[in-house]
Amino acid sequence: MKKILLIIIILFSGSLYAQEWTPLCNGKNLKGWKKLNGNAEFKVKDGIITGVYKMNTPNTFLATEKNYGDFILEFDFKIDEGLNSGVQFRSHSLKDYNNGKVHGYQFEIDGKWSGGVYDEERRGWLYNLNDNPAGGIKTLKNDWNKARIEAVGNSIRTWINGVACANFWDDMTQEGFIALQVHSIGNNKELNGKTVCWKDIRICTTNVAQYQTATCAPEKNIVANSISPTEAKDGWKLLWDGKTANGWKGAKINAFPEKGWVIDNGLLKAQKSGGGESTNGGDIVTTRKYRNFILKVEFKITPGANSGIKYFVDPDLNKGEGSAIGCEFQILDDEKHPDAKLGVKGNRTVGSLYDLIPAAESKKFNLNEFNSATIIVTDNHVEHWLNGIKVVEYERNNQMWNALVAYSKFKDWLNFGNAVEGRILLQDHGDEVWFKNIKIKEL
Amino acid sequence: MKKILLIIIILFSGSLYAQEWTPLCNGKNLKGWKKLNGNAEFKVKDGIITGVYKMNTPNTFLATEKNYGDFILEFDFKIDEGLNSGVQFRSHSLKDYNNGKVHGYQFEIDGKWSGGVYDEERRGWLYNLNDNPAGGIKTLKNDWNKARIEAVGNSIRTWINGVACANFWDDMTQEGFIALQVHSIGNNKELNGKTVCWKDIRICTTNVAQYQTATCAPEKNIVANSISPTEAKDGWKLLWDGKTANGWKGAKINAFPEKGWVIDNGLLKAQKSGGGESTNGGDIVTTRKYRNFILKVEFKITPGANSGIKYFVDPDLNKGEGSAIGCEFQILDDEKHPDAKLGVKGNRTVGSLYDLIPAAESKKFNLNEFNSATIIVTDNHVEHWLNGIKVVEYERNNQMWNALVAYSKFKDWLNFGNAVEGRILLQDHGDEVWFKNIKIKEL
Repeated sequence: MKKILLIIIILFSGSLYAQEWTPLCNGKNLKGWKKLNGNAEFKVKDGIITGVYKMNTPNTFLATEKNYGDFILEFDFKIDEGLNSGVQFRSHSLKDYNNGKVHGYQFEIDGKWSGGVYDEERRGWLYNLNDNPAGGIKTLKNDWNKARIEAVGNSIRTWINGVACANFWDDMTQEGFIALQVHSIGNNKELNGKTVCWKDIRICTTNVAQYQTATCAPEKNIVANSISPTEAKDGWKLLWDGKTANGWKGAKINAFPEKGWVIDNGLLKAQKSGGGESTNGGDIVTTRKYRNFILKVEFKITPGANSGIKYFVDPDLNKGEGSAIGCEFQILDDEKHPDAKLGVKGNRTVGSLYDLIPAAESKKFNLNEFNSATIIVTDNHVEHWLNGIKVVEYERNNQMWNALVAYSKFKDWLNFGNAVEGRILLQDHGDEVWFKNIKIKEL
Repeated sequence: MKKILLIIIILFSGSLYAQEWTPLCNGKNLKGWKKLNGNAEFKVKDGIITGVYKMNTPNTFLATEKNYGDFILEFDFKIDEGLNSGVQFRSHSLKDYNNGKVHGYQFEIDGKWSGGVYDEERRGWLYNLNDNPAGGIKTLKNDWNKARIEAVGNSIRTWINGVACANFWDDMTQEGFIALQVHSIGNNKELNGKTVCWKDIRICTTNVAQYQTATCAPEKNIVANSISPTEAKDGWKLLWDGKTANGWKGAKINAFPEKGWVIDNGLLKAQKSGGGESTNGGDIVTTRKYRNFILKVEFKITPGANSGIKYFVDPDLNKGEGSAIGCEFQILDDEKHPDAKLGVKGNRTVGSLYDLIPAAESKKFNLNEFNSATIIVTDNHVEHWLNGIKVVEYERNNQMWNALVAYSKFKDWLNFGNAVEGRILLQDHGDEVWFKNIKIKEL
């Protein structure tokens, strides 16, 4: 009797929590869908929606009439070679935005970036294979492929054929339509008439958090100056809150500098003042010291600019003029600032450990764009990463370190770079520099 | 029946190979012994020989009339505080050597160096606690102690209370008497009348190799330019044979230099020529290259001298004047040679990695005496040891190494110090320098 009751309970609870899928297409006609922007044709037959590529028409979208916020969307797709397509979600077509052009998140479908998410007519790539080289694009077949999109609050994640592709945290749009794209092909005759097909398009909108997939791609947090739940769980904290001077102060004063630094629209900006070292607002340092950590900072510089991120800083060491003393992740326009040619074998170029170790030649840097600086400290082992590439690696507190320092600008600072802990510093070098997304994970 | 046979065989073979001990004293009188050199008194009673300390007489010895070559000697000893005593072995008293003074190996007995071996009236300390800090002296009691000496061919080993003390390989004397020492005490009244006692003095002279103790102290090879069986077993080889130029050649010529270098009496000598770098005979290098190794070199310099031991040397790199290019264990008289004050923070002093890494301040160096240089290379990890103290440690083939080299004299030599293998070089810097015991163990 007890066994039967148990079986009944299991069966009952199973049906109670079974995922509820709603098909988005009836398989016979396009009821519930509307065509937007272009004039390419969408056909439906035997449960398959086919988009036919057409010359001389802009992107054409087949959009749901309904909007969807949090959902799990699954569909199969098949695309002819050479075509570009995609599936919009949380998207819109508004008269007062680009004259009605469809914009918003797009699950990319093409031969190279499928599964990545492109922000159509807005911010461009949000997450692609560069963020997750192991992504599901590698499973793409010249036949039907299975796609899955999970949009739950700020969390957006994608899969192709069961392999994770994208995963990011973004707060730009919380709901909108779903739309199938036939991309414009200009006057390319070869692509004219080729097709992209979808079938089994189905959506789940209830209890979606419960059905989120455990195995997903590495998360990218796109929300400026924020810590996502994943980051928080992993131990990350904001080192700058994006709004106030909390946690920071002038290196040689007890308050935040009254001039020289501006907090504006989620950016922390060192103002231009003629290129002098700590002569305007002066360097700013964290009010706390840090020992073992991963520090991430995004920075953007103007042509010819000089700045830096220092660590193991003791602001009390240098009682005189100039910057506070510590190890420095150099920030510089290598092309236009003369310091790049000074020093020894490039040890004053961007990403270098200033005046000590040149950044690796494999480094990549973009002027006038945000670049990502990562500094990893594990006791005496230190690494500099610039835009995802390790550019400097060294061990301190040993004979080689002391011998190297003895040759450098820092030779007269007792025990330079060997402190157990220190403050983190952003440098005022009299040039315009922007910082954002300053995050730290203590180890 | 078989069992009984087996037992008989075991019993029989046991008695066949039982160690044969011969007492050196009959316990009643000093028959078989003779007194030498001094006038201190030796008494014997109830199996105990007692030496009585006496003012104003030189060292007194009670020596066996018989000589012993290979043997294992065991005895118990007890010594009053403050006294110095010992047991000579393979020793002699010869009219034409120091007017009959007893000389030869002495098993030291005192409060500090007991168990070490001192070469009485000859070469001084051969092996003491500095060579084996874990030695048996720590087990010494203010009561009876057990001593063991094993002299088998060139191998001499000692123990106190079962703990290994000394172990060296020497070929100076193969046989001689055994003698108990009462050391002179000058006119020290406090020590007058104090005593040292011995008992159970017994010797084994047959099948001694068979009874050698497996657990012994680290071996020291005292035979110049030789490889002991222990060293050979451990992989050591002579890098210089002590007699010829075999295995060596001029760094920039195909033969051994015709001038500037002299091989004499087991020493390899760079001759004085005015202090120029490679201007006399020029540097000499091994004919072979070495990759991973422990290199040991003993060197002695004259006041103000400059020389060096280089490794990872490629003699073809420097086509011009001066020394061949490689990493250098610097040899220098830090006091008198001006180069010690040049360079950066002492990186040109003795033991340093020349112009790159200063030797640790804990280093010890003796002018006009032989010093021991050890260079250990394990792929990219390199160590310099000077007289048993690690003075330099570094990693090459990394960013820090390249950054350090970039600051040094070697900045223009492509990939300096990063070669997988290279020759070993002894430098002619125009000063008189002696080398001996050049040994290498490839790893």
